[in-house]
Amino acid sequence: MAVYTHLGAEDMAALLAPYHLGDLVSAKGIAEGVSNSNWLIETAQEPGKATRFILTMYEFRIEISDLPYFLGLLDHLAAKGCPVPRSIHDGAGNLYRVVATPRGERALALIEFLPGVSLHEPTPGQARAVGAALATLHGAAADYPATRANGMGLAEWQRLADACGPQGLASIDPALASLVAQHLPRLAAQWPQDLPTGVIHADLFPDNVLMQGETVTGLIDFYFACNDVIAYDLAVTHAAWCFDAAGLAFRADLSAALLEGYASVRALSGAERAALPVLAQGAAMRFAMSRAYDWLNTPADALVTRKDPMAFARRLQFYADPANGGVFAL
Amino acid sequence: MAVYTHLGAEDMAALLAPYHLGDLVSAKGIAEGVSNSNWLIETAQEPGKATRFILTMYEFRIEISDLPYFLGLLDHLAAKGCPVPRSIHDGAGNLYRVVATPRGERALALIEFLPGVSLHEPTPGQARAVGAALATLHGAAADYPATRANGMGLAEWQRLADACGPQGLASIDPALASLVAQHLPRLAAQWPQDLPTGVIHADLFPDNVLMQGETVTGLIDFYFACNDVIAYDLAVTHAAWCFDAAGLAFRADLSAALLEGYASVRALSGAERAALPVLAQGAAMRFAMSRAYDWLNTPADALVTRKDPMAFARRLQFYADPANGGVFAL
Repeated sequence: MAVYTHLGAEDMAALLAPYHLGDLVSAKGIAEGVSNSNWLIETAQEPGKATRFILTMYEFRIEISDLPYFLGLLDHLAAKGCPVPRSIHDGAGNLYRVVATPRGERALALIEFLPGVSLHEPTPGQARAVGAALATLHGAAADYPATRANGMGLAEWQRLADACGPQGLASIDPALASLVAQHLPRLAAQWPQDLPTGVIHADLFPDNVLMQGETVTGLIDFYFACNDVIAYDLAVTHAAWCFDAAGLAFRADLSAALLEGYASVRALSGAERAALPVLAQGAAMRFAMSRAYDWLNTPADALVTRKDPMAFARRLQFYADPANGGVFAL
Repeated sequence: MAVYTHLGAEDMAALLAPYHLGDLVSAKGIAEGVSNSNWLIETAQEPGKATRFILTMYEFRIEISDLPYFLGLLDHLAAKGCPVPRSIHDGAGNLYRVVATPRGERALALIEFLPGVSLHEPTPGQARAVGAALATLHGAAADYPATRANGMGLAEWQRLADACGPQGLASIDPALASLVAQHLPRLAAQWPQDLPTGVIHADLFPDNVLMQGETVTGLIDFYFACNDVIAYDLAVTHAAWCFDAAGLAFRADLSAALLEGYASVRALSGAERAALPVLAQGAAMRFAMSRAYDWLNTPADALVTRKDPMAFARRLQFYADPANGGVFAL
């Protein structure tokens, strides 16, 4: 959560000029995103009539060649009424621009500002709304023509686990190495092969959902979006939303509400339903492994705060416990 | 520039409840301030009518007992038409509140959001406007009844220099230790004693001025404000504004414009004018010493970026050079 590139008003005005949005009224670097710098900006075509946007400068991890997929998806979903920020095209119709900065060339894009706040402690009514919004997204994205492979799929979890090594994993927590050794080969063997695929968000944590009351006003941060098993996206969202933030205790009420909300918009097939426990184990493994890798490879002076891999290692144990098999019975 | 305390929507709504501002519409952590966390928040008393505020949580360095001075000053200046953010009082009339957070008790305050952007490369017209705004502030604050000593005055520069020690200073730059040894005792001996005093901002860097075109729309961040020599505030502002951001070259055009703008609102006495060179050396010493101390004492994993003490050591040399004695001739 940081702004990596410092921009003065003059730099900002120059970056925005190709968008023909009027005069720059305000620009605040905002503490969101770990791979990019973001500013909440306000421009006015005429005095007193200001419009707000989010300007994103891509700093790490994101391939510029993926930007048309991500930004085009926003436009596709917004056109179908999904609460996602439209991308703002420049005067030449470009979805993104590449600019020179003191820290090298950077891609930047401009998107709509959406109201709403991110929750820490959702209510069941809010979890239900998120489930419904996710299912609506899956439906609206069904005819999105572009495709992108999931760069954070099973093969990547294996690569990250190998990169950490058993000793590295054990240095995070003695239980983590054995947990990975126990579950990762099994997940690879059991991973469902014939479930419906489509465009998935793949990272729908509470941070990436803006709400007002029980209304979802924004689904944001599509930078892990890809084509993969649709029900896996529900499993990711379940792992991200249905555990108590403080104690990591499973919240059966949120789980039931999220699943109900999803099913109220998109019916899960029998095969999808049956696969949810293993998909959820995979989702937990995915975040445990990416966090473990970041834990071991984040410089001590980084501007980002490392996230605890064990929060998801414990969720993996929860989902893998046969005693919890009834969680996904709808 | 960081948000030190992570607040979810529920925490934020609870913090704001005593202010009776309506429903929380949006909240973004903003990358401003090094001693505090700041959020740009938006609330609505009725749908579609949103108002914006800045919520500040004081994390380090600021004494809660100083908050009435800082926040009361904003209200005093705003009532006189200065472009400063009014403080928003809670339902009981409190200027600030103390709340429990996961990281301990914290004071927080709410102020108006002001439009405008901070400049990196001001024009002479903009420097003139800043000079005039500073002089207007000095006039408007003349009858502010509260007082606060300057905690960053000469005695503190000496204390910071001693805390760094000659070796510490030399570790930053070989020239810094001798520069301090050469100039600090001399400044103490020559420091003007009988100049007019009043309320000063004491930290009016470009970051702390919001502008639209050549209009100053906001003077912000009054957390070094105090009662001290009025002309010293002009010297601080001069040191902060009149050097090229990249090359540290003196910008005679900005200097002349800033001084003219100031004098257009508040005439400097002959004694003030004569003291400006030594006051400016003091201003440069003040920022060189606070930055040197922070340079040596900022943990490598801190969320803030260290600022180069040498930028102000070089300005000290500039101001101390008799060849530049004409800079402050108005």
